[in-house]
Amino acid sequence: MVVDTQNERPMHRIQLNKVGIKNLKTFFITERSGVRHHYIPTVELTIDLPADIKGIHMSRLVESMTEIISDEFSVHDSVEDLQIRILQALAERHLCTHGEVRFDFEFGYTSRTPASKKRTWEVCDVTATTIMEEGKPIRHSVEIQVIGNTVCPHCMANNEGLTHMQRAIGTLNVVGVTEQIPNYGDMIEVIEGSFSSRTYSLLKLEDEMYVTKKMHDNPLFVEDVCRNILQGAKEKFSVRTLEVSAEARSLESIHKHDVIAKGRIVTNGD
Amino acid sequence: MVVDTQNERPMHRIQLNKVGIKNLKTFFITERSGVRHHYIPTVELTIDLPADIKGIHMSRLVESMTEIISDEFSVHDSVEDLQIRILQALAERHLCTHGEVRFDFEFGYTSRTPASKKRTWEVCDVTATTIMEEGKPIRHSVEIQVIGNTVCPHCMANNEGLTHMQRAIGTLNVVGVTEQIPNYGDMIEVIEGSFSSRTYSLLKLEDEMYVTKKMHDNPLFVEDVCRNILQGAKEKFSVRTLEVSAEARSLESIHKHDVIAKGRIVTNGD
Amino acid sequence: MVVDTQNERPMHRIQLNKVGIKNLKTFFITERSGVRHHYIPTVELTIDLPADIKGIHMSRLVESMTEIISDEFSVHDSVEDLQIRILQALAERHLCTHGEVRFDFEFGYTSRTPASKKRTWEVCDVTATTIMEEGKPIRHSVEIQVIGNTVCPHCMANNEGLTHMQRAIGTLNVVGVTEQIPNYGDMIEVIEGSFSSRTYSLLKLEDEMYVTKKMHDNPLFVEDVCRNILQGAKEKFSVRTLEVSAEARSLESIHKHDVIAKGRIVTNGD
Amino acid sequence: MVVDTQNERPMHRIQLNKVGIKNLKTFFITERSGVRHHYIPTVELTIDLPADIKGIHMSRLVESMTEIISDEFSVHDSVEDLQIRILQALAERHLCTHGEVRFDFEFGYTSRTPASKKRTWEVCDVTATTIMEEGKPIRHSVEIQVIGNTVCPHCMANNEGLTHMQRAIGTLNVVGVTEQIPNYGDMIEVIEGSFSSRTYSLLKLEDEMYVTKKMHDNPLFVEDVCRNILQGAKEKFSVRTLEVSAEARSLESIHKHDVIAKGRIVTNGD
Repeated sequence: MVVDTQNERPMHRIQLNKVGIKNLKTFFITERSGVRHHYIPTVELTIDLPADIKGIHMSRLVESMTEIISDEFSVHDSVEDLQIRILQALAERHLCTHGEVRFDFEFGYTSRTPASKKRTWEVCDVTATTIMEEGKPIRHSVEIQVIGNTVCPHCMANNEGLTHMQRAIGTLNVVGVTEQIPNYGDMIEVIEGSFSSRTYSLLKLEDEMYVTKKMHDNPLFVEDVCRNILQGAKEKFSVRTLEVSAEARSLESIHKHDVIAKGRIVTNGD
Repeated sequence: MVVDTQNERPMHRIQLNKVGIKNLKTFFITERSGVRHHYIPTVELTIDLPADIKGIHMSRLVESMTEIISDEFSVHDSVEDLQIRILQALAERHLCTHGEVRFDFEFGYTSRTPASKKRTWEVCDVTATTIMEEGKPIRHSVEIQVIGNTVCPHCMANNEGLTHMQRAIGTLNVVGVTEQIPNYGDMIEVIEGSFSSRTYSLLKLEDEMYVTKKMHDNPLFVEDVCRNILQGAKEKFSVRTLEVSAEARSLESIHKHDVIAKGRIVTNGD
Repeated sequence: MVVDTQNERPMHRIQLNKVGIKNLKTFFITERSGVRHHYIPTVELTIDLPADIKGIHMSRLVESMTEIISDEFSVHDSVEDLQIRILQALAERHLCTHGEVRFDFEFGYTSRTPASKKRTWEVCDVTATTIMEEGKPIRHSVEIQVIGNTVCPHCMANNEGLTHMQRAIGTLNVVGVTEQIPNYGDMIEVIEGSFSSRTYSLLKLEDEMYVTKKMHDNPLFVEDVCRNILQGAKEKFSVRTLEVSAEARSLESIHKHDVIAKGRIVTNGD
Repeated sequence: MVVDTQNERPMHRIQLNKVGIKNLKTFFITERSGVRHHYIPTVELTIDLPADIKGIHMSRLVESMTEIISDEFSVHDSVEDLQIRILQALAERHLCTHGEVRFDFEFGYTSRTPASKKRTWEVCDVTATTIMEEGKPIRHSVEIQVIGNTVCPHCMANNEGLTHMQRAIGTLNVVGVTEQIPNYGDMIEVIEGSFSSRTYSLLKLEDEMYVTKKMHDNPLFVEDVCRNILQGAKEKFSVRTLEVSAEARSLESIHKHDVIAKGRIVTNGD
């Protein structure tokens, strides 16, 4: 006979809002419109715990996830779809009013160099979270980080055109219900279009000259990049009501520290 | 004549809530009741930016901080006091309604081994933040992370006393006005007292036996550790109204992943 | 007309042993015996530079790699084969006597729980490097890190059977020519078999009891785990002459710090 | 009666070259010529283990270190001196032919801005290691990392003066006997003088213009920065015989990846 320690009374009757697993690594495949993507996410999967129950059954969380991912040849529709099904399987096994699953992963995509038009391979960081709450529609948060650059307009205006520039990181986060979530490619496009210039893994000399000229023609503070991302999201995802937040971070070439700008808006399709 | 690019109109009229510097490293000293502490914090210092102004003057942020820290022989009253004075200096230089300064640092303290009573040296991670908002009292957030351990009570109850145990990380976060903020030592004590056992950098054999016995006598889930921290804070800081949150994370010895539990309460001195 | 700055004389005539790119992320696929693996490696690709030449042509390094990976639908034989072809393409473009390519990536594999025989998904860390040196055969270094656990035999012997246990990390590194390199699965097996017990992402109660009993029956220091890995490699890869090194690191549950053991041997098939 | 498990025979008779503790955090003070420095290092402390002994006594390593650091008010002569005394205390407790102690820490120093001559506070990363080997003199390895920048000379030469620039990281490592080890300040100076420009935590507009002009007047590849560090060390530390190695890494502003250059020389005072 099994002693069900988890169902005992806890020493202190305090409700906990997130209990579960973190830093679990797994792997799966999605396919949409004939394009396959492979993921090796780091997973956080949590539920809430009432004040009068001692613990959750941790193994059921992993089991729900494992069952839904199924086997290594299974192909899923999308990260969001997979996350919804994991939370649904979890809700059947556990009494909970709140479930949340988060994947952190690297996402690869292809591009073309700006002048020589050669193929390049780029990778960005994505955090995709799905939240299921009793009495509310399922919601998703998708956050993408892409590397670009900034060029200082203040220095340029005061220094006979000479200025400093540097690597920068743009982040776009959207929160909404399933139908509102943009695809990753569109989000990447908004971020890349917000920098002084986008960056590429491969640049031939003509491309390097193109990018360098573009940077000098388009000097931007982190404040500008952050606002560009917010405005770009507003325009591109205009038919939806989304919570949008953005951050631009510049790895200053003249300092040892970074500079940042953060903001948020709500898009409105009306 | 200087061109003040920052004061121009931005392309997109969007208010930004946090603009400033991040990942800046500096160093300073505090002394209280004759005890000196040395800090090498990583600093984030941000203010808000109105919708119709292009940028902030980043160098004024560093200047405010540098002036207040003064020189390497200056001795300050406390981290919180230093942060308040940085934000005050900043408010004089910048038009802003919100200012925030965050220090991430390692904090050293001494302890005694449980049986042999030898001196040990321990180090924990602290994040200290001060927030100044127009029309509101200054508030602080202090978060401390300490390493301890957990022992699985469910396995022990079903396995003839055999169980698994592992390193665990306890986090306690408090938010309140200046007079309410506990000192770091009291916060560390609450966290250390919440594990199956606290941990020590030095353990002679008699200490190791003491700790191992204590762990077996006190099996706890992460849920228990999290609730212990919340309850401990409630009791120890009971004369204050504080927002308290806690997390326990266990680096499971039988899994490659961690398990976590998070919760929050508001203490009330009444 | 292009100015070839790289071919100018350098200010200081000093030979450099490694010049190239680092922290580049890309993605590709391998297939062997019908099993596909997907990789998102972080790449370091370097060559040497003679004392009298100012610089290398960095874009040719990325170009060589991009050409060989070809397109996102290309399927390669193995990581080692792909790395050899990248270095060969590079040698055609650059005058160099030493070329080296390193991939750091996460590698997924499946397993079965020890008692309930359920399917589990595990992920480990791999560093694969290929080195091409003039006048020498091509060599590879493969390093794999897997998470397991240790149980203290000294505490157990002095404490009436009570002891402490913890998560541990085992590392196996092999260096040899192409034919000698074992496959990743065999290396993982050697590491997993060297701990007090291997770990699993999923464990039902009967599995947890099985693992916990196994841990208590098999107490090991990090010194033991390190020697087990070295001995396991010696036996399993005995028909080859390989340089083998190993490390065991234990995330002590009674301390805030880790303990480690490192060693190396040369296997000899004779 | 204590069972001394460590002194039993191991299962596999394999000699181990490094056994000990890692990721231990502690704190101490040095004072030289009236200047105090405070350190919160991460410590690795290891010895070798003969083939026929099962394990080392881990607690003696921490004990040796704790005794030598003594108490929180003790003031030591230098990091190197402290490390020698820890290894000596260790050699008395353990039978070993090789002992090694490594500290990783952040080191603060002050500087002046280049034009306005204001005080700034800078922090760099240091790794200091002392190695004691039977029959050999004690040796030290000191590695310092400082942040500066690079400006691309090839792009500048082909693009009507327009070019890209970026944050860069310079590393200088020296290995030698005690009398040969330079002080940290001299090593920092060599690295800072090797970039297109050094960087500062504070820059007023006139300083920013000064730095930007200097960067444009001094375009350098990572290969140039690496050779500058090696040559600078050779000239500054010319009366000594030191093994010197260096690395320059550039966080490219036009790419998502970094570029690197590594080299080594031996200085010779003759």
